[in-house]
Amino acid sequence: MSGVSNESTVMDLGLAPEGHKKIEWAATHSPVLNQVRDEHLMDGSFEGLNVGVVLPIEAKTAYLAVVLTEAGADVTVASPSPFMVQDDVAAALVERGVTVYASSLDAPEDSEKEMERLLDRVLREGPGVLIDDRAGLAALLHTTRRNLLANARGASEETTTGVAKMAAMHEEGILEIPCLAANDARCKHLFDNRYGTGQSTLTALMQSTNLMLGGKRVVVLGYGWCGKGIARYAAGLGARVTVCEVDPVRGLEAYADGFDVLPALDAAETGEVFITATGVRDVLTPEHFGRMRNGAILANAGAVDIEVDVAGLSSAATEVRDVRRDVEEFAMPDGRRLYLVGRGMVVNLTAGDGHPVEIMDLTFAIQALCAHHLAKEYATMSPGVHRLPKEIDDEVAALKLDAVGMGIDALTPEQERYLRSWRE
Amino acid sequence: MSGVSNESTVMDLGLAPEGHKKIEWAATHSPVLNQVRDEHLMDGSFEGLNVGVVLPIEAKTAYLAVVLTEAGADVTVASPSPFMVQDDVAAALVERGVTVYASSLDAPEDSEKEMERLLDRVLREGPGVLIDDRAGLAALLHTTRRNLLANARGASEETTTGVAKMAAMHEEGILEIPCLAANDARCKHLFDNRYGTGQSTLTALMQSTNLMLGGKRVVVLGYGWCGKGIARYAAGLGARVTVCEVDPVRGLEAYADGFDVLPALDAAETGEVFITATGVRDVLTPEHFGRMRNGAILANAGAVDIEVDVAGLSSAATEVRDVRRDVEEFAMPDGRRLYLVGRGMVVNLTAGDGHPVEIMDLTFAIQALCAHHLAKEYATMSPGVHRLPKEIDDEVAALKLDAVGMGIDALTPEQERYLRSWRE
Amino acid sequence: MSGVSNESTVMDLGLAPEGHKKIEWAATHSPVLNQVRDEHLMDGSFEGLNVGVVLPIEAKTAYLAVVLTEAGADVTVASPSPFMVQDDVAAALVERGVTVYASSLDAPEDSEKEMERLLDRVLREGPGVLIDDRAGLAALLHTTRRNLLANARGASEETTTGVAKMAAMHEEGILEIPCLAANDARCKHLFDNRYGTGQSTLTALMQSTNLMLGGKRVVVLGYGWCGKGIARYAAGLGARVTVCEVDPVRGLEAYADGFDVLPALDAAETGEVFITATGVRDVLTPEHFGRMRNGAILANAGAVDIEVDVAGLSSAATEVRDVRRDVEEFAMPDGRRLYLVGRGMVVNLTAGDGHPVEIMDLTFAIQALCAHHLAKEYATMSPGVHRLPKEIDDEVAALKLDAVGMGIDALTPEQERYLRSWRE
Amino acid sequence: MSGVSNESTVMDLGLAPEGHKKIEWAATHSPVLNQVRDEHLMDGSFEGLNVGVVLPIEAKTAYLAVVLTEAGADVTVASPSPFMVQDDVAAALVERGVTVYASSLDAPEDSEKEMERLLDRVLREGPGVLIDDRAGLAALLHTTRRNLLANARGASEETTTGVAKMAAMHEEGILEIPCLAANDARCKHLFDNRYGTGQSTLTALMQSTNLMLGGKRVVVLGYGWCGKGIARYAAGLGARVTVCEVDPVRGLEAYADGFDVLPALDAAETGEVFITATGVRDVLTPEHFGRMRNGAILANAGAVDIEVDVAGLSSAATEVRDVRRDVEEFAMPDGRRLYLVGRGMVVNLTAGDGHPVEIMDLTFAIQALCAHHLAKEYATMSPGVHRLPKEIDDEVAALKLDAVGMGIDALTPEQERYLRSWRE
Repeated sequence: MSGVSNESTVMDLGLAPEGHKKIEWAATHSPVLNQVRDEHLMDGSFEGLNVGVVLPIEAKTAYLAVVLTEAGADVTVASPSPFMVQDDVAAALVERGVTVYASSLDAPEDSEKEMERLLDRVLREGPGVLIDDRAGLAALLHTTRRNLLANARGASEETTTGVAKMAAMHEEGILEIPCLAANDARCKHLFDNRYGTGQSTLTALMQSTNLMLGGKRVVVLGYGWCGKGIARYAAGLGARVTVCEVDPVRGLEAYADGFDVLPALDAAETGEVFITATGVRDVLTPEHFGRMRNGAILANAGAVDIEVDVAGLSSAATEVRDVRRDVEEFAMPDGRRLYLVGRGMVVNLTAGDGHPVEIMDLTFAIQALCAHHLAKEYATMSPGVHRLPKEIDDEVAALKLDAVGMGIDALTPEQERYLRSWRE
Repeated sequence: MSGVSNESTVMDLGLAPEGHKKIEWAATHSPVLNQVRDEHLMDGSFEGLNVGVVLPIEAKTAYLAVVLTEAGADVTVASPSPFMVQDDVAAALVERGVTVYASSLDAPEDSEKEMERLLDRVLREGPGVLIDDRAGLAALLHTTRRNLLANARGASEETTTGVAKMAAMHEEGILEIPCLAANDARCKHLFDNRYGTGQSTLTALMQSTNLMLGGKRVVVLGYGWCGKGIARYAAGLGARVTVCEVDPVRGLEAYADGFDVLPALDAAETGEVFITATGVRDVLTPEHFGRMRNGAILANAGAVDIEVDVAGLSSAATEVRDVRRDVEEFAMPDGRRLYLVGRGMVVNLTAGDGHPVEIMDLTFAIQALCAHHLAKEYATMSPGVHRLPKEIDDEVAALKLDAVGMGIDALTPEQERYLRSWRE
Repeated sequence: MSGVSNESTVMDLGLAPEGHKKIEWAATHSPVLNQVRDEHLMDGSFEGLNVGVVLPIEAKTAYLAVVLTEAGADVTVASPSPFMVQDDVAAALVERGVTVYASSLDAPEDSEKEMERLLDRVLREGPGVLIDDRAGLAALLHTTRRNLLANARGASEETTTGVAKMAAMHEEGILEIPCLAANDARCKHLFDNRYGTGQSTLTALMQSTNLMLGGKRVVVLGYGWCGKGIARYAAGLGARVTVCEVDPVRGLEAYADGFDVLPALDAAETGEVFITATGVRDVLTPEHFGRMRNGAILANAGAVDIEVDVAGLSSAATEVRDVRRDVEEFAMPDGRRLYLVGRGMVVNLTAGDGHPVEIMDLTFAIQALCAHHLAKEYATMSPGVHRLPKEIDDEVAALKLDAVGMGIDALTPEQERYLRSWRE
Repeated sequence: MSGVSNESTVMDLGLAPEGHKKIEWAATHSPVLNQVRDEHLMDGSFEGLNVGVVLPIEAKTAYLAVVLTEAGADVTVASPSPFMVQDDVAAALVERGVTVYASSLDAPEDSEKEMERLLDRVLREGPGVLIDDRAGLAALLHTTRRNLLANARGASEETTTGVAKMAAMHEEGILEIPCLAANDARCKHLFDNRYGTGQSTLTALMQSTNLMLGGKRVVVLGYGWCGKGIARYAAGLGARVTVCEVDPVRGLEAYADGFDVLPALDAAETGEVFITATGVRDVLTPEHFGRMRNGAILANAGAVDIEVDVAGLSSAATEVRDVRRDVEEFAMPDGRRLYLVGRGMVVNLTAGDGHPVEIMDLTFAIQALCAHHLAKEYATMSPGVHRLPKEIDDEVAALKLDAVGMGIDALTPEQERYLRSWRE
């Protein structure tokens, strides 16, 4: 059976049945997205609209594409990396009517170029709304594919890194479309970045290494929402956590949370597991590798693939080999061996199934509402980075609380008056 | 020995020696404030300036007054409540050259009026800078003491509640001075509200009741920074925590943090300990008291004295009596007995020593720098609510990290460039 | 008003009203002891029996004495130290018909001799049953007061230390009475030693120092049940915990629990707070003091008053002075200052109210049932250290679970058969 | 390539290369077992001795077999279940000189009989020492294979369940060989049962379901060492934990640890995830299934395959299907769907890689030393259940502490004297 159907390029359509199961599982555990679909997305705003999506191809992202399709959109998806493609899911997506450019075998030796090629194919569909990842689509659209700018109503972006890039584009006066910072929705970053990254990063590490966290000296580089989640759960599993930061207030938070706070070069000497979550490049470099203990484990949980300088690590090593699925061993000239999990790319995806379903239910409810907002309101929005209206954020949270059987109160009129008054 | 020296009104100057010890202890554990004093406050900005301070009178607040005095200011202090005055500290302050209007016996039966009277006495000194608590001084200054507005360079405010009140004044077009939201400094609310309130509230509850937290069903009302700190430490001490909220995203955070999230009337039925930290009035009312279990413990950790409707509780009770120091028993007509710790005022001060010294070291370094900023830069500041410049916030955090032997990194130029660039 | 009534020696009988309140509070929160009294203790076994009790004099111990009195016993109590006497409670006890030898002013300069004198007075009443603390009564009874051995039916002992001493006496062939190891009841040491010591030790430290635990490097010396409780709660409050041990398996547990495990001399260099809980002498000595950082805080949570070598610390210091209630400052010749909380005696009693009431409800239900068992069954018991029958232990736990509204299951007959069978 | 080599029966010898990698990874992370081998096992005690091993076939168990082989033993291994066989590891073991009876395809439809057949094959080798799992070998040896009893020097047993079975055999007067309760070594159950089961059970659940633990109502059935570990880590990952117990003291511990404690039928109504760890049969039965919420997840972490009544669940269901790898969906007649992870067998093995390597390093150091002790000292040991000498237990812990760079102290002679003395 061919891997190409319509325009789609996937590994093997024969894998679809397993992919359908996975997507169904995601659908079952996405009560918020389901309700958002039923109550908001079916109003015709998506009817016939092309939506370009760049996201890792696994069950939850697939279900977002399915939901947008159900709402009438023509959806095209590509993966930001061939290491973040589950071929069975890609195949199932094609059967669900989504155009898919994603295969786990696509040019692993030159993944950056390949990614650009795939993004370009998504853009060539002329999307009206972009669901972007690290501003990859937006950057191409404003440089090599400017001819397609006229079609684009706007872009939604779900990473901290991508939002920063879009803001930089806007600051440089380049951005010509409205962007919704899905990442900045409280229902996104408070949960996805923190709890989602936290649980899935550690699960990926534990399953791929089969090592114990209890007692381990775990170094978390970056104490933003992602780092906070990783550090908290690592401590919850018994690890001894050290945090590295560049922001003194975040450093102080880490200290008050009970963690050691050290410069990364100092932490390099005592750490047993290193997890980067900073959003910048070159956080762990040969200078750090040179100080690490024999057996140190490295992984990246951030959106940036070069937080760990894997190229530098490879150059420094005398031999590189696979020692377990998703674990590479780098033999150093002095005899030490360092281990890299998930190739230095975001480890919960390259060595795991990504965020928990319930987390992505929240995130994709936000994403779907961002896309919906852009589809509907773009004419009133100026180029620049916008936040999702607070009411939408609140509604998503309320739907989720309801889905899990929790309840909250409302302020009484007297309380609202009290809050507004300075005379009492 | 008289309790009045110069213009000061305190309980008993003979208590000063014990007060000096307490202040010295605070001074010893305030490395950040000490360094801020040495590096910033002694530049003459405070020389001869009258600074009016409204804060609970205990060792740490006293030390702030002492430091400002050392920097050349004429400092007048009053307490927001007679229940928040340690008379030995008040006496020591007088001996340190501070004008003090505070005595634990001041009219407890009519504390609101008495507070207003004391604030008025502070204002009558014609302060150039106000260090305010819940906007009490600012409110009087803009109503009954408008004649003194001309003197006032600005106000610094350290509670969430007070900042909201000042913002409300500004929105109504009434505010005529610049206000610095000390509370909104990250070095303040991330630590003071969260860790400070958390530790000191639970310590006050444990020492005043001698009851165990492990296993107790503790209901935390409000999941802002204060509530987050209380809930976290309560869980850390083994309590089973339920959170009540009005904001769905905060409610969802509480759920993901592992807590039950319930409407307050539902939580009223199962809770064993209730702690309010909302910043609004009437959070626990007779409707809630009517549903509570026999033996329920109530306390308020928020800035608002009427979060627990103590008047309503008293009316409902057939008898009220002291059963332990700081614990009152309210006998209900149906035989249940409810217990109120610290009179419904902020419990870590009325039944304890307030926030830990190290927390107030941070908070008062911020406060001192806010006052300093107002003293120096007021001419360039417009009326309204301002935030402390980020650099000052960062410096305080860095000083603290240094004081505790922790270290951080700086971004490399390449990393800064990477963060600013959208092309990579 | 005299402090002596009948044979009792207390500070001031006029303090009784405050003491009664405290005892009443304890009674209210002792549902298990109350039920044990109603269902077991009133069967006449205690009628006219003299019971000698050595325990700190505060509300919960007082209530045990009251309950035994209510059950018909003639109860005499003394405190193991003048620093563990609350005079109001002592006075109230006298009014409740208990003979009391305890006053906070009793010879603090020579507390050891004074303690022996008080124990001797308890023995001179000729107790039939002893409720002992660290085997103090039992040791005297088998040495200087052997003439009273004939009266004694047996002793109950509630500390790990005391049980070890009694076992040592038995091993030496000296013990002539049956001893019940109340400490070894699971309802005692799993809760009292762990959660009780944990919460109350940290509460005492936080209230007496007003310092923050979050971020502090807290060194826990000893990782038995007491140390485990302290370390867990310290971590729960954000401390960075280091454990010192002599038992490698316990050390390994501490490591797996996420703590650093270091020899005490190494830990001495980095610690900020030191808490001993070992049951042996000279855990922190001048060798350790010499390495400690300026400002280090020391406290003992164990049953042994010489875990911290206070005499050695005093000798090394150039000046000793009180800096806060319950906190002494020791100025070292090199300028460092070390701080001792609660005089090196068990800090939750010397600088606090002791264990939480609910914990002592369990412990004293066990103690009362031990005394009852000895009163009733002594004739069938041989000299030596005995454990409380498992059924009694289980019953106490079941009563407590019921009191807090929790429930458990019972094994079905099939499950019991399954457990006994090796053929399935 | 055939799956049979010598007498071994494995799936496919061609899988060996991947298996060797896994075993090498285990070897790298087993410093304690390696040191035990070098210092104790090579003394000739194992030379030519047949050792029969029944354990899940994965990398760590394989490495134990390899080490014993290196020490001179003729080792035969079988798996207690075809669902606990990694075929690549089995193949590699054959290449390492171990006789292996294990294949993942062996008669899954009748796994109990198949297991008996495999155990029998192990016994037919005439082992001198047994390393047993749930007393399977020992039971056969004392019933159908009594003729081989003469060869057997003794058995080591590593599960709580197996030790109980051997004790039952001894009580019935049937046991004819000495058994070492490896499980009862502190270095085993304190770590393997608690931290090992805790981490690996939750990792298996998270990876197989891709669901979030934070906020989930997780019901842990059984609060022995396994249940304690599961509950602790689940709470550390943000779950809301309920514990079910039959022992009131354990129930009370769970309550004091901050968990709800409920009868299982009550917990069945609110739970979202159910994990059994009791060691008895029929813990979750149709009566419980009938009350569960739609979507409930079930898994077993205990040694007993029938803790969850899977047969009863299947009978009650109208349809059973695989919905994800290792997850089966049971459609109930009323429309609810329940999900079973890992077939109701011990989930960390059937849906994961088993305990972390470092945990098994401890456990298998104990196992190897038990086997060594039996090989060497059997002549001096009576039939019955023995514990490993404390010194060996301590040595293993000390080796591990050393391997992770932690250190402990030793009692001084004065301290030892103090501990033995009752006169001080």
